[in-house]
Amino acid sequence: MTNPRADRVKAVRALASRSVRRRTGTFLVEGPQAVREAVAPGSPRVHDVYVTVDAAARYPEIVAAARDVGARVRNGTPDVLDAMSADAQGVVAVVDQVGAGLDDVLTRRPRLVAVLAHVRDPGNAGTVLRAADAAGADAVVLTASSVDVHNPKTVRSTAGSLFHLPVVPGPELPDAVGALRSAGLTVLAAAGSGEHDLDDLLDVVGAAPAGVPDLSRPTAWVFGNEAWGLRDEDLALADATVRVPLRGRAESLNLATAATVCLYASGRAHR
Amino acid sequence: MTNPRADRVKAVRALASRSVRRRTGTFLVEGPQAVREAVAPGSPRVHDVYVTVDAAARYPEIVAAARDVGARVRNGTPDVLDAMSADAQGVVAVVDQVGAGLDDVLTRRPRLVAVLAHVRDPGNAGTVLRAADAAGADAVVLTASSVDVHNPKTVRSTAGSLFHLPVVPGPELPDAVGALRSAGLTVLAAAGSGEHDLDDLLDVVGAAPAGVPDLSRPTAWVFGNEAWGLRDEDLALADATVRVPLRGRAESLNLATAATVCLYASGRAHR
Repeated sequence: MTNPRADRVKAVRALASRSVRRRTGTFLVEGPQAVREAVAPGSPRVHDVYVTVDAAARYPEIVAAARDVGARVRNGTPDVLDAMSADAQGVVAVVDQVGAGLDDVLTRRPRLVAVLAHVRDPGNAGTVLRAADAAGADAVVLTASSVDVHNPKTVRSTAGSLFHLPVVPGPELPDAVGALRSAGLTVLAAAGSGEHDLDDLLDVVGAAPAGVPDLSRPTAWVFGNEAWGLRDEDLALADATVRVPLRGRAESLNLATAATVCLYASGRAHR
Repeated sequence: MTNPRADRVKAVRALASRSVRRRTGTFLVEGPQAVREAVAPGSPRVHDVYVTVDAAARYPEIVAAARDVGARVRNGTPDVLDAMSADAQGVVAVVDQVGAGLDDVLTRRPRLVAVLAHVRDPGNAGTVLRAADAAGADAVVLTASSVDVHNPKTVRSTAGSLFHLPVVPGPELPDAVGALRSAGLTVLAAAGSGEHDLDDLLDVVGAAPAGVPDLSRPTAWVFGNEAWGLRDEDLALADATVRVPLRGRAESLNLATAATVCLYASGRAHR
């Protein structure tokens, strides 16, 4: 492929738009690191991989793995790849959207789940998903009012973690919380105004008194919007609300920072 | 002020450039949240505050505090403020640069210091600075090869924390590590290949065996570049290297996530 204005190139570039992604059921994976994860066994179906001659020579294992999973591999000039995505770095893939059902996830008895409620910033959502993967979370839920996990900036921020753990898109928060609780998870809402200090909870892991959440139990964390957090009605859904300690003069934490501290605390409590 | 093309407006906008900031010794603080911190007692000298009539009515306490610290307060039209900064939200301030000397910081016997080495992304640096503030760090050092802390994106990412704790700009990493160690701090380098697992260190706080760093002691954490981390010669400067546990399939953590986990671990160990 040599024509950056070809219809096929435009169709790939159009996946930057949520409505096009929804219509086609696919999304765009950009760059060698992410495409390598996309063509690994267990990832969603890969339709097409577009690669420059240079990138194909540099990453022969990506091309081989793409063929192994049945993807069409097409060569494109650097101009073609750049027209498909400013972040192509020589290789992109068109892939079926990820997305697990919450019921399926719950049958696997998860011990740590992150729920993103009203998270609108694509980079934040991806960073939290990557941190959830690192902390050992078994699944991530993005509620209906959150950003599309297939947003290109989100996909990039996950650094491949999008393909590492089940992502449940689209439930309303009350439905998700109800299902998680029914499956035996303690639902904790992270909030600056939370009733429990996370450090206090870490002090009593495995021996929490009545009325105090025990981080050693299976846990779902609910994280809210980057600007305004969780609303009162969201907080009321949780079994308890938890605040990350602020030891300096900072008035708040950014979403990804707070989520990281909470998820790592749970990961440590689950050792 | 009504003319968005006036020389004064251009001079304010020019503070987006590092060379202009260096020449004038000032930087630009944008938006009500950050300007509120800038005009608080203890912050660097505030030269000018530019504010729209609407913002002045909405934030009278900012205008009053600006006058209290001796700043010139000037009204500008919304066009003028927008020309000064796309992130003005009606108010900006021109402020003397922050910057403490490492020797001065060390005379105050800090217990927790974050050192950013070769950190190039402005948003990352600001996010780590904000997390360091929240975790209770006493100072942040940015080595000579790191981003300018007065970069507008860095300033925004700190969410005011830039004014909360001393920031030491510009030392070379070996000099900074030497001074920190001489002042009695244990120097820990965060690295994916680190010899100690952070969770193992948390297990022995206050009772670490010989050869194992004790997080209850005064500690300086060294964090490296967002893409390539710390070089071998950087790692060799530290007393020990520490890895953040990766429990899922993530291959690495982003810089801000790793720094958050390390600094919060130290903050907890120092309680």
